[in-house]
Amino acid sequence: MSHLDAPSVIRVKRDGGVLSNEAIDWVIDAYTHDRVADAQMSALLMAIFLRGMTTAEIARWTAAMIDSGERLDFTDLRRDGAPLALVDKHSTGGVGDKITIPLVPVVMACGGAVPQAAGRGLGHTGGTLDKLESIPGFTAEITKTQIRQQLCDIGAAIFAAGELAPADRKIYALRDVTGTTESLPLIASSVMSKKIAEGTRALVLDCKVGSGAFLATEAESRELARTMVDLGTEHGLLTRALLTDMSVPLGRTVGNAVEVVESLEVLEGGGPEDVVELTLALAREMLDAAGIDGVDPAQTLRDGSAMDRFRELVAAQGGDVGSLTAEALPLGAHKETVTAPGGGTMGDIDAMAVGLAVWRLGAGRSEPGQRVQFGAGMRIHRRPGEPVAAGEPLFTLYTDTPDRFAPALGELDGGWSVGAEPPTTRPLVIDRIM
Amino acid sequence: MSHLDAPSVIRVKRDGGVLSNEAIDWVIDAYTHDRVADAQMSALLMAIFLRGMTTAEIARWTAAMIDSGERLDFTDLRRDGAPLALVDKHSTGGVGDKITIPLVPVVMACGGAVPQAAGRGLGHTGGTLDKLESIPGFTAEITKTQIRQQLCDIGAAIFAAGELAPADRKIYALRDVTGTTESLPLIASSVMSKKIAEGTRALVLDCKVGSGAFLATEAESRELARTMVDLGTEHGLLTRALLTDMSVPLGRTVGNAVEVVESLEVLEGGGPEDVVELTLALAREMLDAAGIDGVDPAQTLRDGSAMDRFRELVAAQGGDVGSLTAEALPLGAHKETVTAPGGGTMGDIDAMAVGLAVWRLGAGRSEPGQRVQFGAGMRIHRRPGEPVAAGEPLFTLYTDTPDRFAPALGELDGGWSVGAEPPTTRPLVIDRIM
Repeated sequence: MSHLDAPSVIRVKRDGGVLSNEAIDWVIDAYTHDRVADAQMSALLMAIFLRGMTTAEIARWTAAMIDSGERLDFTDLRRDGAPLALVDKHSTGGVGDKITIPLVPVVMACGGAVPQAAGRGLGHTGGTLDKLESIPGFTAEITKTQIRQQLCDIGAAIFAAGELAPADRKIYALRDVTGTTESLPLIASSVMSKKIAEGTRALVLDCKVGSGAFLATEAESRELARTMVDLGTEHGLLTRALLTDMSVPLGRTVGNAVEVVESLEVLEGGGPEDVVELTLALAREMLDAAGIDGVDPAQTLRDGSAMDRFRELVAAQGGDVGSLTAEALPLGAHKETVTAPGGGTMGDIDAMAVGLAVWRLGAGRSEPGQRVQFGAGMRIHRRPGEPVAAGEPLFTLYTDTPDRFAPALGELDGGWSVGAEPPTTRPLVIDRIM
Repeated sequence: MSHLDAPSVIRVKRDGGVLSNEAIDWVIDAYTHDRVADAQMSALLMAIFLRGMTTAEIARWTAAMIDSGERLDFTDLRRDGAPLALVDKHSTGGVGDKITIPLVPVVMACGGAVPQAAGRGLGHTGGTLDKLESIPGFTAEITKTQIRQQLCDIGAAIFAAGELAPADRKIYALRDVTGTTESLPLIASSVMSKKIAEGTRALVLDCKVGSGAFLATEAESRELARTMVDLGTEHGLLTRALLTDMSVPLGRTVGNAVEVVESLEVLEGGGPEDVVELTLALAREMLDAAGIDGVDPAQTLRDGSAMDRFRELVAAQGGDVGSLTAEALPLGAHKETVTAPGGGTMGDIDAMAVGLAVWRLGAGRSEPGQRVQFGAGMRIHRRPGEPVAAGEPLFTLYTDTPDRFAPALGELDGGWSVGAEPPTTRPLVIDRIM
């Protein structure tokens, strides 16, 4: 039995002190094994939220979470006799951020191998797993043997974090219900513990900036990116980050199945400009980090090779490739349309407002473990800067539970405008940190 | 179903905002009925700890906790045709603070009626119920009918808070294990919700100042006293407070049964000077607040009338009055003595060090609901300023579990000294706030 106890550890952080390595190792291990109660961990999380953590504390907290479970290792795998070019991408969470869905097949088609431990939606942001599971039959609950097989055979596996960093799984669920999500040390350690444990060798982070991001300011997002890049590097991952804009939703769809539909458009060589731009920017970073050169990721969208890889991936994980059409994928049984009150130019669309509206429609969870509605979501008919005529549809909202329209419309209200002048344009990729 | 949810309420306080009346009422009610989880309440408590509360928030939080249960009312009771002089005292918690035990019988003997909802030990401080329950047979689990009967017949009832302020009962237990005890808004609301609900008409608060108090500085203790006096007044209680010194333990005993033994000495007209002084100072305040004049509380200690009342009280609540002797009350089976390394004058004895040592000996709890050792405790042979000869016993520690001596001696270590000069003397009663 340790001489440490939870109230003493909590008091150190509460009073603005620095947690010792021993205290961090103990509290993560004891919480993982239910010897520290949820109530005690949540008090500690709130103290960390308000008092912060030093770089050294974040590093130890991350290491302790990795050590709470298994660290996967795929360096022994070979394809055509050569080691795999293991590379992954992680986004800090955005609205309409379906980028993983077209991006992974693009990187597969270019010769990369992507071992991706993916997450579910948190708060107002969507989760890749919730989106992919809207494809009938698709499962992320796959065995380690299957992950290894897929990496060798087709070059990717998208799986639930499962036994990776189990301490993080518990803490992540707790943060969501205790108002302790938007904290730099807690975000950085959560992301990096899973990404280091998942067995990738290179990692590209997509750090969001703007109203739809978890952290409020560009400076904080920049510091988060820096912290995560350093954590990855310390653990032997080649890590870099792009700072990207999340003031407005990505693309023209937000939700679960509707985002898969838009991803299919991208994989067919179409789709919204910003989604294509960010997919290719991240693909280039990933290929560079993985040491793959001489290939053009844009070509894989034009020639259909990325789409072929996506169908292989879906099929390998039990998904029905026949359902990969706008008609076959689920869509909420009820819809409601918001029309333009007058003509002009579409102004900015607030990512947070849209994210919360779609969450209210049933695309996200208000309790851990809740089922999401695959058909819930929103189509954005006019993006910022596009011309609008009075009475034209601007947004269509979908849900299976029509009593959710009122709260969703309430969230959306005030989050957009139609004016005389186009809104200021912002670059999508703001900076690159390595 | 309310439109409020716990994460949103937590975020308001986390970000330094003011909780609305509606949010406070909702969260207290929802937590009482298990619709808000312990983990959520503890995150909110930590946010309150670090962000504070306005006077209005504390008042509403207190009112909501009172409303979570029943508010007792004894104003209909009569003795000899007259309404009872209902008055109670509450201490914010100290070390060796057995004052309730001699004080209640003194006030009974002077004609007051004391309806006391008493508490158990919290952290390093002892609890009146833990002490009284060391008397074989004594119980504080008495019915409302019995409380009313005792108030009329003998003039006091000491009972477990039970169904009074059930929200506070849950929050109090949670604070103890989540490092959120030492917070002015949380202390004030906890104390006053129980005292307002218990049905007294007048209340004297003993607000501790010094190393053994929960709050660190005299200024904070003073603010706590002011806040509690105002809360009582708003709810129709005649409330006043004494600020008293808790730098050193009260009397020569700290623990459970050992403190009852010392209380018996006081009731026999002896006992340590400081215990007698504080008992009489608080008795005079209580009698004044209850509108009783022309009686001398010191006389009740000299003439044995207070002792008679104490025996009546013990008997009424099932206690064995034959056990009210030093020989019959429990004492730890094992003892360890700390002797003077050299001669001189006993210096200050740190109340916190002694409180923690006695807690380690088994007199207090490290988990809610744990059984305390009635025989665990400490005798202090030399009080600050008394002459000491080399090799003389200074402290005797008692426990039933001798493996606790090492941690207890560790806590005591450095908490006392023997020197050439006597320590600075401090007044016991520092100020009076009304």
